[in-house]
Amino acid sequence: MEVDIKRIITRLEELYLCGQKEDGTFTRMAYSDEDIKGRQKFRGYFEKLGIPVRLDEAGNMIARLEGENKDLPAILIGSHLDTVPDGGKYDGVLGCVAGLEVCEMLAANKKRLKHPLEVIVFTDEEGFRFGNGLLGSGAICGEDLHIQESDLDMYGQTRKEVFEKYGIKVSDVAKAKRNPETVHCFLELHVEQGVSLYKHKIPVGIVSSIAGVSRYEIQVKGQANHAGSTRMEDRHDALVAAARFIAAVPKIVAENGNEFTVATVGTMKVTPNSVNVIPGNCEFLLEIRDQSAEVMKLIEEKLKAELETICGEMEEELTWIHLSYHAPAPMSPQVKQAIEKAVAKQKAEYTVIPSGAFHDSLLMTEVFPTGMIFVPSVEGISHSRYELTMEEDIKRGCSVLLDTVLEVDSMEIPCLKKER
Amino acid sequence: MEVDIKRIITRLEELYLCGQKEDGTFTRMAYSDEDIKGRQKFRGYFEKLGIPVRLDEAGNMIARLEGENKDLPAILIGSHLDTVPDGGKYDGVLGCVAGLEVCEMLAANKKRLKHPLEVIVFTDEEGFRFGNGLLGSGAICGEDLHIQESDLDMYGQTRKEVFEKYGIKVSDVAKAKRNPETVHCFLELHVEQGVSLYKHKIPVGIVSSIAGVSRYEIQVKGQANHAGSTRMEDRHDALVAAARFIAAVPKIVAENGNEFTVATVGTMKVTPNSVNVIPGNCEFLLEIRDQSAEVMKLIEEKLKAELETICGEMEEELTWIHLSYHAPAPMSPQVKQAIEKAVAKQKAEYTVIPSGAFHDSLLMTEVFPTGMIFVPSVEGISHSRYELTMEEDIKRGCSVLLDTVLEVDSMEIPCLKKER
Repeated sequence: MEVDIKRIITRLEELYLCGQKEDGTFTRMAYSDEDIKGRQKFRGYFEKLGIPVRLDEAGNMIARLEGENKDLPAILIGSHLDTVPDGGKYDGVLGCVAGLEVCEMLAANKKRLKHPLEVIVFTDEEGFRFGNGLLGSGAICGEDLHIQESDLDMYGQTRKEVFEKYGIKVSDVAKAKRNPETVHCFLELHVEQGVSLYKHKIPVGIVSSIAGVSRYEIQVKGQANHAGSTRMEDRHDALVAAARFIAAVPKIVAENGNEFTVATVGTMKVTPNSVNVIPGNCEFLLEIRDQSAEVMKLIEEKLKAELETICGEMEEELTWIHLSYHAPAPMSPQVKQAIEKAVAKQKAEYTVIPSGAFHDSLLMTEVFPTGMIFVPSVEGISHSRYELTMEEDIKRGCSVLLDTVLEVDSMEIPCLKKER
Repeated sequence: MEVDIKRIITRLEELYLCGQKEDGTFTRMAYSDEDIKGRQKFRGYFEKLGIPVRLDEAGNMIARLEGENKDLPAILIGSHLDTVPDGGKYDGVLGCVAGLEVCEMLAANKKRLKHPLEVIVFTDEEGFRFGNGLLGSGAICGEDLHIQESDLDMYGQTRKEVFEKYGIKVSDVAKAKRNPETVHCFLELHVEQGVSLYKHKIPVGIVSSIAGVSRYEIQVKGQANHAGSTRMEDRHDALVAAARFIAAVPKIVAENGNEFTVATVGTMKVTPNSVNVIPGNCEFLLEIRDQSAEVMKLIEEKLKAELETICGEMEEELTWIHLSYHAPAPMSPQVKQAIEKAVAKQKAEYTVIPSGAFHDSLLMTEVFPTGMIFVPSVEGISHSRYELTMEEDIKRGCSVLLDTVLEVDSMEIPCLKKER
C-alpha cells in the first residue's frame, strides 16, 4: 500500500484556498465562513468514499469507518483545520488530510481493520479568536472549559452567536466528553513547527511528550528619576535590572536545562517609558517549557535567584507571580512502540523528540493512549504563509501513520482511565 | 542684608496653591489657568514694591528695577513658574522668588544698583504641553523655535488658540529676541534635581556647564518564532540582544565616561510582545549626556560597537539613528567667579558641578554671560510632589544670589556677541 502523494498535495491546496479572504491572506479562523468552507470541502472527501461524517456537541467533525467488530474501541486519528491569521498549508491540516488518506488507502486496498477508525477534525485548536484554544479536544477529554455564552471574541461577538452559526450550543459542548473505553488509541500527525528535524535532516520525529508550560508575571520596581541629573551610581534603573535578568536567561537554561528546555521573555512594559526618565518600573512575562516538571522547577528557582541577586545589588524590588501551569504530557509507550515499528517498515531514520508547542494531543494523552508523529518544517517556520514541509516528508509521514494504524489495530493497549 | 526666609517660604507656598486642580494635584502647566493665576500672584508682589512688570512678545514676564544708570545693560535673574504635572514647590519657582527677594532686599535697604535689574519668568520651560520647552528663553536668545499656529497640544488645542488666551501671538514670538548688548549677565538659582549636593552635604553648587544631550533611536531585528518549539540554540531573540546591550550600558559609561557622564535607555517596544512568541523586534531610545562633546562621542562609539558585537554573535540586525544633539553649554567664567566670591562671603562650602538637566540657562549661556547656582534637592527627588529643598539651603542660595548680584554690578563682563 503506497499513499498517493499527488492526492494529498492537491487536498492541502484545495483546503488552503478555502481560506482566501478579501485582505489577501488565506486564513481559516475557527468558526469563520472560511473555516466552515474548509470543513465542508473536507466532509465531501469522506462522503465520496461513502464514509459517514457527524458533528459532536463541541463541533468536532468525526468521520467513522467501521471495522470488523464495531464493538471494539475506535482508533482515532485527528488534528485541526482552523488556522492562525495568514497561517500556512500544513499546521493541523496535514494531520486531517493524512487521516483521510489512511481511509482512502484502506478502501482502495479493501483492507478492513478490526477496530473502527475515526478521523476527527477538532474545533478551535488555535484559540486566537476567543483567547483560549484546544476547545474540541478539551471537550472530548472532559476538561473544564471555562466557556460562557457571553464570552466575546476579538470582534466583540458573543460565543453564543458564534457557536449557533456554527451549529453548536455552548450549553451542550460538555456532552462531547468521550468515554475512554470507547477509544483504542489516538494518533496525530503534525508538522514540527521547530527546526530540529529539518536542521538534522531527520524525516520523522516520534513525540516523547508535550512540554509542560509555566508562565510568570514579573515586576521589577526601581526608582524613576531624571535621566540627566541622576548620576549612574545613584540610579535604581528598573530596565537595567530587567535587562541583566533577560540577558542571563539563555545562560541559566543552558546550565540547568537540557537541549529541549526553553525559557522566553516575550513581553516588556516600561514605566514611565520616556526618553529622559530613568525607568522606574518594568513588567514582563516569562515562560518556561520542558518535558520534566523537575527541570521546570529547577529553572524557575535558578531564574528567580538570579533576579533576586540583581535586585539586591541594585536596591530594587521584585514581584514574581506564577500565572499558569500545564504539566508535561508524556505520550503512550505502547503507541510510541507501534510508531517505531511503522517507521522501521518505512526504513526511515527517526528521532524521539519532545514537542515544545501545544497540540490537541496535549489533552488527549491524559485520557487516551496517544501517539504523535512529527514531520520536518523547513527552517522551522510556523504560523506563517511561509510554512513549508517537503512532499517527500509528507509522503513518508502519511505512510508511517498508515502503518501505525495497522500496527495498533492488532495490539493490546490498556485503557488509561475507566469512565470517570 | 539678610534675606527673609519666612517671606520666601510663604511665597513658595502661595504660588504652589495657585496650581490646585480638581484632580487633587498642584500643577501649573504652561499657559493654563493655574499658570496664569501663579503669574498674576507673582506680578502682584512686584507691583506692591512699585516695580513695573511687562510681558514680552514670547510671554516672558519681566519686572525691571532701574539702576543708577538706565543706559547700562541689565543684570537678569530668571527662571520659570510653569511645572510638570503634580510637580513640586521648588523647580523653577525658587529662582523666580529668589529674584523677587533680591529686589525686596535692595528696596528695603535702599540700595540702588548701578545696572538695571530685571527678574524674568520664562514662558513654557518644561515643554510637556506641546512637546518642546525652553520657549521663552529660546525666543530671547533668538533661537529658531520651529513653532506653528497649527501645532497641537496634548489636548488637541492649537498653539494659536492657546497663545491668544495667554495674550501672545505665534507670529510675534520671535520679536522677543534680545540684543546681547542690553544684558550685563544672566543669573539663575535652581534646585539641583539630582542627589550630588544632598548626598555630599554641600549646600551650594556652582554650575560649570549644562550637559550636552544626544538621543538615539535604536532597533534590533531578530526573528519572531514559536517560544515552545524553537530551541534556545536556534533563536534570534531581539529582546535578549537588546537586554545584553542595556545591561552593558552602565559598565561602558563607567569605563569610558567621568563621574557625571550618564547614558539611559528610557523606553522599550517589543514586537510582537506576546508571551508565547520569541521577540522578533525591539525598538528603544538611548540618551547620552555629558559636559564634553568628545566624551559623548566616545560613549556613543563604544555603545554602538557593543551592540554590533552582540548582534553579530546573535545573527541579528541593528539600526542606529541619531535623533538629536544639543552641545554641552559652559557657563561664563566671569559670572562663575562672581558667584564664588558671593559664596565665600556666606562662608558656605560649595562645589563646582555640571548640570545634567536642561534649564533656560542652557540657551541663555550661548548668548549672554550666564551663571547658575544650585541648592540641594533632598534625596535628589525632582518633578514630583515629593520634591524638597530645606529652608536653610533656600536661605543660603538666595543670599548667594543677592551677593552675586552685588558682585556682578561692579564687574566688567565682556559681551559675548554683538547684535547679530
